[in-house]
Amino acid sequence: MKRRNFLTAASGLIGAAIGGGAVWLSNQRKDEMAGPAVAMGKRELTMVMTWPKKFPGLGTGAERLADSITAATDGRLTVKLYAAGELVPAFESFDAVSQGTADIMHAASYYWVGKSPGFAFFTAVPFGLTANELNAWVEWGGGQELWDSLSADFNMKSILAGNTGVQMGGWFRKEMKTLDDFKGVKMRIPGLAGAVLDKLGGSAVTLPGGELFQALQSGTIDATEWVGPWNDRAMGFYKVAKFYYYPGFHEPGAGLECAFNLDTWNSFSDADRALLTGLCRSENDHMLAEYNAKNAAALEDLISNQGVQLKRFSSEIYAGLGKASAEVIEEKVLSSGDAKAKKIGEAFLAFRKEVAGWTRLSEQAYLGERAKALNLS
Amino acid sequence: MKRRNFLTAASGLIGAAIGGGAVWLSNQRKDEMAGPAVAMGKRELTMVMTWPKKFPGLGTGAERLADSITAATDGRLTVKLYAAGELVPAFESFDAVSQGTADIMHAASYYWVGKSPGFAFFTAVPFGLTANELNAWVEWGGGQELWDSLSADFNMKSILAGNTGVQMGGWFRKEMKTLDDFKGVKMRIPGLAGAVLDKLGGSAVTLPGGELFQALQSGTIDATEWVGPWNDRAMGFYKVAKFYYYPGFHEPGAGLECAFNLDTWNSFSDADRALLTGLCRSENDHMLAEYNAKNAAALEDLISNQGVQLKRFSSEIYAGLGKASAEVIEEKVLSSGDAKAKKIGEAFLAFRKEVAGWTRLSEQAYLGERAKALNLS
Repeated sequence: MKRRNFLTAASGLIGAAIGGGAVWLSNQRKDEMAGPAVAMGKRELTMVMTWPKKFPGLGTGAERLADSITAATDGRLTVKLYAAGELVPAFESFDAVSQGTADIMHAASYYWVGKSPGFAFFTAVPFGLTANELNAWVEWGGGQELWDSLSADFNMKSILAGNTGVQMGGWFRKEMKTLDDFKGVKMRIPGLAGAVLDKLGGSAVTLPGGELFQALQSGTIDATEWVGPWNDRAMGFYKVAKFYYYPGFHEPGAGLECAFNLDTWNSFSDADRALLTGLCRSENDHMLAEYNAKNAAALEDLISNQGVQLKRFSSEIYAGLGKASAEVIEEKVLSSGDAKAKKIGEAFLAFRKEVAGWTRLSEQAYLGERAKALNLS
Repeated sequence: MKRRNFLTAASGLIGAAIGGGAVWLSNQRKDEMAGPAVAMGKRELTMVMTWPKKFPGLGTGAERLADSITAATDGRLTVKLYAAGELVPAFESFDAVSQGTADIMHAASYYWVGKSPGFAFFTAVPFGLTANELNAWVEWGGGQELWDSLSADFNMKSILAGNTGVQMGGWFRKEMKTLDDFKGVKMRIPGLAGAVLDKLGGSAVTLPGGELFQALQSGTIDATEWVGPWNDRAMGFYKVAKFYYYPGFHEPGAGLECAFNLDTWNSFSDADRALLTGLCRSENDHMLAEYNAKNAAALEDLISNQGVQLKRFSSEIYAGLGKASAEVIEEKVLSSGDAKAKKIGEAFLAFRKEVAGWTRLSEQAYLGERAKALNLS
């Protein structure tokens, strides 16, 4: 739907006036009372997302964030959320927020690598950061400042607001035993990871989620990655592809963003910016927790009840994926000629080096010992 | 300081009246305007914490949470924070909030095992959940409902609000090669983990943080655990104990709590409860991110510049710790005769079984492959 049609259709907004993409309702007025400034009027904010309505995890998380802003302000900031395609197509969300057609979007930053390859690092890159590490980098390791600088070039401000956690390696119709097995494999795998597959002689394809099941069933594609057990089970891939590989090399913790039109962001009071930052971070915590809880339950079901065969890629395959991933990041980002993307990529890789040393001694070492103590491996 | 003295001292609160532990300032009045209900008055909330002022991570995180409530409400809810000992001693915080002397506390739930052993599970238990897994259990796996039920028995409501991440195994004056080496070792290690040490023939001691350095230096104790590289470096342990062991078995992700007096909690509007829940979860995200970022940098400094010898406990030691940990949880919690604690413990262990299966395939497997790809192991 075009903006004009939307406004016509949104007949409930009597007397609305547009400013910086925001819709101010007619009951807005100044707070004439003494004491702290409290905006008494309702302000309606338009939010788009790159997910279908009710899409579990990503879509429901974005909806929860939108609702939490409305709830926590008792409606003073009322967020009206449009799913992908309702106001603009999913991949036009960036331009819509950049131009002020919408105030806010919930999306994955790496969708916007066509604007700058630097955007990839704020979601996930092959052999990159886990969710906890990404949070550490963005919130405490200089990542936010780099993101702000890049986003400001497009009149936007982004905050982390969700994470899928480690993704699975994908569903394959045939067993993948050696690196050579990737030759000729047609697989749905997007972004930099797709370029990694191409380097191994495979063929990365892009297909909308709604067409994936049939493509995999018919053999139009040989494999697909999606997210993790919770989302993947709902797609039914286990019915048409026998082998479920772990772990994914390509998205070790896909960070989602809540991006604001910068004029809208700057129009908020300090108090509202603190509130919105807090609610984004809250969803950043809450969505990852949901993925981990629901992936755990879905995985058990897939193995126990659906006959799924879990497979781990071989060491030879991971070595090949690791080498190709480093090359792809070098070629597509660091040497792309985009100076800001290069700066972001180098900062990301330096942080990965430092934090990976700590993660190896903490999460990784602990999980290894616990698995032995619980007889899991 | 006693409550009476505090009130006398808090002379800035002209015309204050006490209600449910909350201090309402005199400019509070009803919102007489149309539209959504907005409390126009300032409400001051008293918050205590079990940490010293400015204690990095725990104390600064609690302060950040307190400040964020004040900031996000533009002072409508103004949180006045008292460090350990300022209003009540650290370990009297629970009673202070339970009885309404304070409205809010920031603490570690496992400090309150004397009230019920069930409180241990909402911070950390030996070979228990990582931060991400704890969030998954509490927020999505039924943990919050069990916590609410237990806390309500003490007129409180708790929300996760911070995490240290995986802790280190501790600083030892001598090398620990076999399980037998634990015999006779005097170590500062609290709670259930202390009982594990005792089972191995060691002797768990409790000492305030401020006395630890000297006790370790003089040989009064042979070892101490604390938190992780960031906090540990500041304590200077590396100057007096040579061996720094990883990973800790005892606190794989210590969750912190923001606990409200239940009358105070129930006095809030739905909007404020949504806001406060969001800000607690925001700090839950933000503190863990800070620990991971700063532990990573401190670890590198300890190894490169301070000559610290990193050591990993042997497989034999972890096997012994694992066996003793399971026994301690059984004896101290499940068989303690506290029915609610038993129910919580069983739910925790069932969730651990399920989520550990997922974590093994995701975080653990990915980190193992990445470490190889980056030549870290």
